[in-house]
Amino acid sequence: MKNSLIAILMMLSSADMSAQKNTMMIRMSEIEIDSNYLREYNKILKEEAQASVKLEPGVISIFPMYQKENSTQVRILEIYASKEAYESHLTTPHFKKYKSTTLKMVKSLKLTDMSAIDPQTMHDIFSKLKE
Amino acid sequence: MKNSLIAILMMLSSADMSAQKNTMMIRMSEIEIDSNYLREYNKILKEEAQASVKLEPGVISIFPMYQKENSTQVRILEIYASKEAYESHLTTPHFKKYKSTTLKMVKSLKLTDMSAIDPQTMHDIFSKLKE
Repeated sequence: MKNSLIAILMMLSSADMSAQKNTMMIRMSEIEIDSNYLREYNKILKEEAQASVKLEPGVISIFPMYQKENSTQVRILEIYASKEAYESHLTTPHFKKYKSTTLKMVKSLKLTDMSAIDPQTMHDIFSKLKE
Repeated sequence: MKNSLIAILMMLSSADMSAQKNTMMIRMSEIEIDSNYLREYNKILKEEAQASVKLEPGVISIFPMYQKENSTQVRILEIYASKEAYESHLTTPHFKKYKSTTLKMVKSLKLTDMSAIDPQTMHDIFSKLKE
């Protein structure tokens, strides 16, 4: 009985993970920051990324980076469990605060949807991150 | 005695992780692929990324992706424990095989060194991945 239950739970968990793999949303944001606000922008972005990963189960990972040779060129790799998780993220207080306070600091913004070349490995990695 | 040993080990481990955080190398590769070779290229890249993460302790993570709207535009986020780990990666049989077999498939290649906006969080994440 106990073993059957475990088997069923494992099947459910596996089905859930498989669904997540198929719906996972990967976004690359390319942002140019006004150099006058760079330090302030990075601080706000760091706080927003931390809050998102901590508070939202559907935000799998957010990696904010900048180009070493041109620190006003920011790149953010964002991974959401699904499109719904992303849409929900846009309504959170921490995202709204980030958006409104950084609006004047952003010179350009390009959002590009990405696909993983190896979805299985990417999924395994990000499941591990949210454990 | 046992507690002292554990304390020393924890200090050593923490020092080691701190050193890694300072030396971590983040690279964004932007690659345009000849559409005639796209399927073949993706297969070779996937194998190379898997082998690198599996066989090289200094390769922390490699995420190969492509733009959904333009699948010949490949982006790879690569994280190495140090510059030395990256240089060692370039000498491995799997990297050399990838490089020589895909040379004719690559139309353009741009390598950009990146810095994490939140090195502590990025380090914590990638330590977890290599556990």
